[in-house]
Amino acid sequence: MEQFNVKEIIDEINELMDILDHTTLQEMLNDFHPADIADILHYSNDKNKITIFKLLDHDIASETLTYLDDYVRDHILHSMDTKNISKMIEDMESDDVTDLIHDLPADVKEEVLSKMDKEDVEDVKELLAHHEESAGGIMAKEYVDVNESLTIDQAVQEVRQQAQEIEHVFYVFVVNDIGMLVGVLSLKTLIIAPPEKKVSEVMNPDVISVKVGMDQEEVAHIVKKYDLVSLPVVDDSGILVGRITIDDIVDVIDDEVSEDIHKIGGMEALPDRYLAVPIATMIKKRAVWLVVLFISEMLTASVMTYFENAIAKAVVLALFIPLIISSGGNSGSQAATLIIRALAVGEVTIRDWWKIMSREVISGLVLGIILGIIGFLRIVVWSSFSHVYGDHPVLVGLTVGFSLLGIVLWGTLSGSLLPIILKSLKLDPATSSAPFVATLVDVTGLLIYFTFAYLFLSGTLL
Amino acid sequence: MEQFNVKEIIDEINELMDILDHTTLQEMLNDFHPADIADILHYSNDKNKITIFKLLDHDIASETLTYLDDYVRDHILHSMDTKNISKMIEDMESDDVTDLIHDLPADVKEEVLSKMDKEDVEDVKELLAHHEESAGGIMAKEYVDVNESLTIDQAVQEVRQQAQEIEHVFYVFVVNDIGMLVGVLSLKTLIIAPPEKKVSEVMNPDVISVKVGMDQEEVAHIVKKYDLVSLPVVDDSGILVGRITIDDIVDVIDDEVSEDIHKIGGMEALPDRYLAVPIATMIKKRAVWLVVLFISEMLTASVMTYFENAIAKAVVLALFIPLIISSGGNSGSQAATLIIRALAVGEVTIRDWWKIMSREVISGLVLGIILGIIGFLRIVVWSSFSHVYGDHPVLVGLTVGFSLLGIVLWGTLSGSLLPIILKSLKLDPATSSAPFVATLVDVTGLLIYFTFAYLFLSGTLL
Repeated sequence: MEQFNVKEIIDEINELMDILDHTTLQEMLNDFHPADIADILHYSNDKNKITIFKLLDHDIASETLTYLDDYVRDHILHSMDTKNISKMIEDMESDDVTDLIHDLPADVKEEVLSKMDKEDVEDVKELLAHHEESAGGIMAKEYVDVNESLTIDQAVQEVRQQAQEIEHVFYVFVVNDIGMLVGVLSLKTLIIAPPEKKVSEVMNPDVISVKVGMDQEEVAHIVKKYDLVSLPVVDDSGILVGRITIDDIVDVIDDEVSEDIHKIGGMEALPDRYLAVPIATMIKKRAVWLVVLFISEMLTASVMTYFENAIAKAVVLALFIPLIISSGGNSGSQAATLIIRALAVGEVTIRDWWKIMSREVISGLVLGIILGIIGFLRIVVWSSFSHVYGDHPVLVGLTVGFSLLGIVLWGTLSGSLLPIILKSLKLDPATSSAPFVATLVDVTGLLIYFTFAYLFLSGTLL
Repeated sequence: MEQFNVKEIIDEINELMDILDHTTLQEMLNDFHPADIADILHYSNDKNKITIFKLLDHDIASETLTYLDDYVRDHILHSMDTKNISKMIEDMESDDVTDLIHDLPADVKEEVLSKMDKEDVEDVKELLAHHEESAGGIMAKEYVDVNESLTIDQAVQEVRQQAQEIEHVFYVFVVNDIGMLVGVLSLKTLIIAPPEKKVSEVMNPDVISVKVGMDQEEVAHIVKKYDLVSLPVVDDSGILVGRITIDDIVDVIDDEVSEDIHKIGGMEALPDRYLAVPIATMIKKRAVWLVVLFISEMLTASVMTYFENAIAKAVVLALFIPLIISSGGNSGSQAATLIIRALAVGEVTIRDWWKIMSREVISGLVLGIILGIIGFLRIVVWSSFSHVYGDHPVLVGLTVGFSLLGIVLWGTLSGSLLPIILKSLKLDPATSSAPFVATLVDVTGLLIYFTFAYLFLSGTLL
């Protein structure tokens, strides 16, 4: 199957909608993979979305729904009556159905549920009861299980029966008489093993499972750590209740990463994709941190007031304030980002704090010396051509150079330490965003700068 | 199988190493999952790493190697002779072997290859020839393929034979007489389908595949988009040459995200995990951007020189410089991070630039008005208690307030536009890091500030 440039196809389709009769378009559309149709719908205008969706065959329409983003899906469902919705979700897997029903308005939800198959409704109601971000909230009820006492031959018969209605089967879960998970069998083993052997003899009894209430982020860690493709979910008594597949975990990983990145950027995580979030919500998510940072940054004005006389005497000092505080912010942002990510993927833990500190002290010193030398040279060299930095360029250069060393070292240390401290307080390390560290470093940076100024310039400029 | 706290176990094991005889420790260790043993090795000191590894059974040791981070693995391999290494990798899948051999010193590599099974060597040499970050570089040679002309019954026999040596089989790839990929069969279909049917009748001919040279990031996009678990790789003539499984793709996604996050933090991406990167390399990766940003930020000193007289006349203006430029940087950092991530996951494309701009203009205006009002009020209210802001607090307040509005709007616009511009120039949007945007906004922010200062304060302070 060829991959293609969806954006070109969409332009074509939108043209065809006006020129062609819909039968030709229909044939064309139903040849695409549902994931591609989802892309086409995503990039079509609102009117065309509904027209295109109505041209799809029932099976393809149903599958396409599972690939759509929430807001496109909700837009399309909005145009359908409840009978059609119930019919559309008949063939979906229970986790997709739950996801879809979860987002429906309450009255529509009730009506759709009342029109569904009774057995399916039970599954969906069970899944809806779990927290959306728990193992129970992302699992599906479609799995194949066999009793440990069966022979391989009997198990194959059982799989044939159960698997008819399930799209993807990679593992068969093995349970005992009361439904407790006791092992796992790959389909490969089922094909290879001698038919007369007992399931309990060939299964892998060391099956990795998660409890239904586990947070999805933790589930993702387990799936990644053990390289799993499918993961059984059990209740508190060890009874098998569902399964999670890795494609759902990939979505969880994406969401968690977006959350981290938004926080690193200095804002609260958006609840949905950029264009789908109402603009008022987005502004609120940004305003909270922006105002917090702004009010903290007001401390710089207070610090500056304290040094107002120094500035009045030596205006040249004011010239380098943006340069100096931004260098602290930049080095702090680097360090914070590095450590936040390393903590997130488990490359380091808070137990490693000492190793991290010793690396960051060296890095901060070296980086500070580099910037300090460049800063010093810039002032001294520049002054040999112009009188812009006054009568004492070397002293000013030393002030700026040493301040840069101190501020870069301080920025690096606080940037790397802050995520570790947050983590050890069980807070999210990503909260120590680049802007947050920068703000912290700005205030202390000014103190460092003016301290060096008094040290080098007392008696001359100050 | 219970999950447990690895860090507690490691402390226990390190104690046991001194107290217990190694036989007890050996029994204990070999009961763990190889992924857990890998964790234990990761957190043990260098001497214990080797002692522990030598206590592992051959099979478990071999599997543990595939879960280890490069630097721990290389440390352990360093302590083994080439004969042992060749024996250890006998049972590994070809992609893991290739990965391991790739990192060996050239002379050890040759020796290990010379001691390996001839057929395996051919596979590994073929895989080594591909670019490390291409589909060919991450694929494995272990897959099950059947000819389209077989019956299901014959295919099952074929799978039984081929699958013995392959650990994970989820799909059977279908090829024609010259080895071209023509379809795919799930093991489920193989179990369910009537034995006398032809493979070509029940297979899915719409099999999604990738070319051997495709970049791994693009491969990851395809796997995510189509929710795949296993993906066949073909050469330019469509001949099946390998398969990629989703657990390898999860690692690719992790790497790409780390790269983006490092760039957002204002540095070059690290080539390996934080603690594994030599400190000189890490400093270099950070110094490059830090120096570039520093030199760009020097422009602020030049701009400030231009306004030196204004500052000398109204020192009060200097007090708010950090507050004002940091607000521009923070709002720019928010916008850039949002758009970089939205572009990375495909939530928006450069085609959406107009939608993005209209959202960002509104956001920037609202956020700017909020900060502007807070800034204005802070100065005016404060001045009713003290004389710190001079004789014209309302005019100073207006200067700061309007500057904040202008700078936040400007920061938001440039922060959101920059990633889009980079993307449309086929550059990496993540390069428009938070520090980069902040630096850009600092220089223009000063211009905005002093412009408003002349507007409001000419005739009074200026």
